[in-house]
Amino acid sequence: MRTIYAEVLSIGDEILYGQITDTNSQWISAELDKIGVRTIRKTTVGDDEKQILQAFQEAERRADMVLITGGLGPTSDDLTKPLLARYFDSPISTNEQALAELEEMYRYRNRPLNALNRRQADLPEKCQFISNKVGTAPGMWFEREGKVFVSMPGVPHEMKKMMSEIILPKLERFFNPPAIYHRMVRTSGIAESVLAETLSEWEAQLPPHIKLAYLPKLMQVRLRLTAFGEDREQLKQEVEKEIEKLPPSVGKYIYGYDEDLLEEVIGRILREREETVSTAESCTGGHIAHTITSIAGSSDYFLGGIIPYQNEIKVEQLGVKVDTIAHYGAVSEECVKEMARNVREKFRTTYGLASSGIAGPGGGTPDKPVGTVWIALSDGVQTVAKKLALSKDRAINIQLTTVAVLNLLFQTLREKS
Amino acid sequence: MRTIYAEVLSIGDEILYGQITDTNSQWISAELDKIGVRTIRKTTVGDDEKQILQAFQEAERRADMVLITGGLGPTSDDLTKPLLARYFDSPISTNEQALAELEEMYRYRNRPLNALNRRQADLPEKCQFISNKVGTAPGMWFEREGKVFVSMPGVPHEMKKMMSEIILPKLERFFNPPAIYHRMVRTSGIAESVLAETLSEWEAQLPPHIKLAYLPKLMQVRLRLTAFGEDREQLKQEVEKEIEKLPPSVGKYIYGYDEDLLEEVIGRILREREETVSTAESCTGGHIAHTITSIAGSSDYFLGGIIPYQNEIKVEQLGVKVDTIAHYGAVSEECVKEMARNVREKFRTTYGLASSGIAGPGGGTPDKPVGTVWIALSDGVQTVAKKLALSKDRAINIQLTTVAVLNLLFQTLREKS
Repeated sequence: MRTIYAEVLSIGDEILYGQITDTNSQWISAELDKIGVRTIRKTTVGDDEKQILQAFQEAERRADMVLITGGLGPTSDDLTKPLLARYFDSPISTNEQALAELEEMYRYRNRPLNALNRRQADLPEKCQFISNKVGTAPGMWFEREGKVFVSMPGVPHEMKKMMSEIILPKLERFFNPPAIYHRMVRTSGIAESVLAETLSEWEAQLPPHIKLAYLPKLMQVRLRLTAFGEDREQLKQEVEKEIEKLPPSVGKYIYGYDEDLLEEVIGRILREREETVSTAESCTGGHIAHTITSIAGSSDYFLGGIIPYQNEIKVEQLGVKVDTIAHYGAVSEECVKEMARNVREKFRTTYGLASSGIAGPGGGTPDKPVGTVWIALSDGVQTVAKKLALSKDRAINIQLTTVAVLNLLFQTLREKS
Repeated sequence: MRTIYAEVLSIGDEILYGQITDTNSQWISAELDKIGVRTIRKTTVGDDEKQILQAFQEAERRADMVLITGGLGPTSDDLTKPLLARYFDSPISTNEQALAELEEMYRYRNRPLNALNRRQADLPEKCQFISNKVGTAPGMWFEREGKVFVSMPGVPHEMKKMMSEIILPKLERFFNPPAIYHRMVRTSGIAESVLAETLSEWEAQLPPHIKLAYLPKLMQVRLRLTAFGEDREQLKQEVEKEIEKLPPSVGKYIYGYDEDLLEEVIGRILREREETVSTAESCTGGHIAHTITSIAGSSDYFLGGIIPYQNEIKVEQLGVKVDTIAHYGAVSEECVKEMARNVREKFRTTYGLASSGIAGPGGGTPDKPVGTVWIALSDGVQTVAKKLALSKDRAINIQLTTVAVLNLLFQTLREKS
C-alpha cells in the first residue's frame, strides 16, 4: 500500500508578508486527510517568478500531487497561470468552455466582459479546465508522469466549492488513496506530562499502524489517534478498541471526542438533566459566563451571573459577609465559597460557580502572588473550593481559571451520573 | 542597501494535516515586516526527521534567518531540538540557566518537576538559550556563517512573548535591516468604504515612499502607514506630518495608535477622570465585562456587572419592570435603557452599559431577526440607546456588540472632554 503525498502551495505576497491569514491551506490539508492523502509539506511563496518555479520543482519531486491556490487574478502581478504554462511547456490559448462559462457569468451579473476579464478564459493547452461556479478564475488540472498539479483561485469560497465538488472526487479516482481514520480524545484537568507517564504502557502496545500525538492547549490535552490501512470501517473499529483500553485513571479526565468543547459537553448534560447554573466572577471578569454563553442555546441552562469586581460589590450585590473579606481577604477559600453559595441562591440555580484571584500583573503579595486563584462550586448540598497557582500572565490566568471552573463543574456532573 | 530575507518554518503534524490553524507564521512575518525583514518563504513540515532536516537545508540556502516554531514539547514526537543539534553538529547537555528558570517556574506553580519536564532544560551546546517567561520550552538561537536559526515554542502566546521581547530586538541588532517606519492609526465606528472615500484626496497626496493599507476587523478599521528609507527618525517625522493632515471628519473616529486597544484607551480616560463603569449584559453574556477586565488595572474603574440571561433575572436582579418586558420584549429600546440605568444605580458608577439582543443562531422572529441587538449607555443625566442589525453568526454578533458598546462609551467620553 503506497502512501499518496500532497504538497499545498499558496501563492501571494499578501499571505507571505502576513497581511492576510491563509485559511486555505489548513482547509485543503484537512480535506485531503479525509480521503487518505497525506500532506507532506505546505509552502507559501510570494508573487515572484523565481520562487514560484522553484517551488513547483521542489514540490513535484516530493509529492504525488501539488495543490496550488492564489495568483490567478487577471492583473499583471498574478503569475500562476503563465508560470504553469511555462513549467508544463504549454502554449496558452482561449479555452472555449472557459469562455462560454465566463460570458454566461457576466451575462447573469449584467456586467460587460472587458478584455482584461476575458483573459481569464485563456488557458494552457495542456491543462484540463476546472469550472469555477462562483467566480471568474477557472481552475487548471495538469498531469505528467503520474503526478498531478491543480491550480485553484485564492478566494476561499471559490476554492472550497471547486475542491469539494470537482477536485477531491477527481483526485480520489486518479490516485485511489489508502484508508485513514482519525479520532481525537479530549481531556481536561490532567497535565500533558502526567498523562504521558500514565499512558506510556498503553502507548507502547498500540499497533504500528495507529499513531498517537499529544496536543496540549490551556490545561486541556487532546490525544490524537490516527490509523492507516485498507479499510476505513475496520480502522475505526480498531481505534475505538484501543480507546476502550485507556486506563480508568485517565478516563475520568476525558470529556469528549473530535470537535467537542468542554462548555458544549457541559451544556448537553445540564440540558438533559434539566439543571441550571449561575456564575459569580471576580478575577475572570465575565469570561466564564462568556464561555458558557458562547454555545448556542445556552439560555436553556445558564440563568445569569454577577461580576462583583470590587469588595463592596461582593458585599452589597452578592451578600458576601464583610467579616469574611476582613478576616480572610477576597482571594480566599471562605470568600469564594460564599460567592458560589450566594449566587446559586440568588439565581435559584442547581449549581453556583465562583472565581476570585489575582489575575495580575499587579496586585500580588508574598502570601498571595500573582496567579493565586480560588474557585468554587456549590450544589446546595456542599460547596467545594480549589486553589490554583497559575502564571504571571493576566490573559492566560483568566483563561486557565475558566477551564478549571468548567472542569470542576464537569467532574461534579460526572460524579453525579 | 541589502534586503534581509527570512524563512518561517512551522513544524508539527497537527498543522500539516490541518487539525489546528497556524496563526504563528502570519504573526511572525507581519512582525518581521515591521523591522524591515522580507519573508521569502513559509514552510510547514510534519514531525518527520527527513522532512525537517531537508527544510533546514533549503531554508538556509534561501534566507538569512530561519524562524522555527513547534516541535519543542517534552514528548517523543517532538523532534526540533534533537534535529537542530544534529544539524549544527552540537552535543546536547543541561543548560544551567534553562534549568534554573524551569525549577523556578515549577516552584512558583507549586508542582513537582518530573524527569520528562526536566529534559526541557537540555539544550544543544552550540545554541544560545532564549528564556520562555510563560512556558517550559525554552527558545534556541543558532548562528553559522552570518545566518541565524531561531527555534521557538509553537504555543502562540509563548512564541509571541519570546519573539517580541527577545528575538526581534536581537535580530535587529544582528542584521541591522534597512529603515522602515510603521504607524497604525486605529478607528472605530466608521465603515471601511466611507473611510476610503473620505480619505481619497489625502491618500493621493501621500509621497511615494509612504504606503497606506486599510486593515478592517470587526467594525474597526486600522490605517497602516509604512515608510521606507534610510533614516528611521526622519521617516517617523514624515509619517507623523501626514497623520496630522487627516481630515477632522475622520479624526473623531480615531481612538488610538499602534497597539492601542479601544478598551485600554477607555480605561485610561476613566482612570484619569476618576470615573467608573458597570455593565448589564444579556446577549453578550459577559463578553463586554471580560473585554474591559482584560486590561490590567481595570479594577480602578470597572466596579462590576450583572448578566441577566433570563427575563426573570432581569426583573429580580436588575429591577427591570415586568411591564416593560411584557409590552416591548427583552430585546427593545425600553428594556435595554432600563438595564443601563438600573445597573448604573445599583453599582453607583458614572456610566452604566447594557446589551440585549438575539445573538443567534436560533431565537429570531420576522420582527426581530437574528442579529437584532439593542445597546444603551446611561450617565445619570441621559440614557442613549442604539439598535444594531448584525449578522447570523453568534460569535461575531457577540464581538460586534461588544465593540459597539465600547465605541458608544468612547464617543460619550470624547464629547465630554
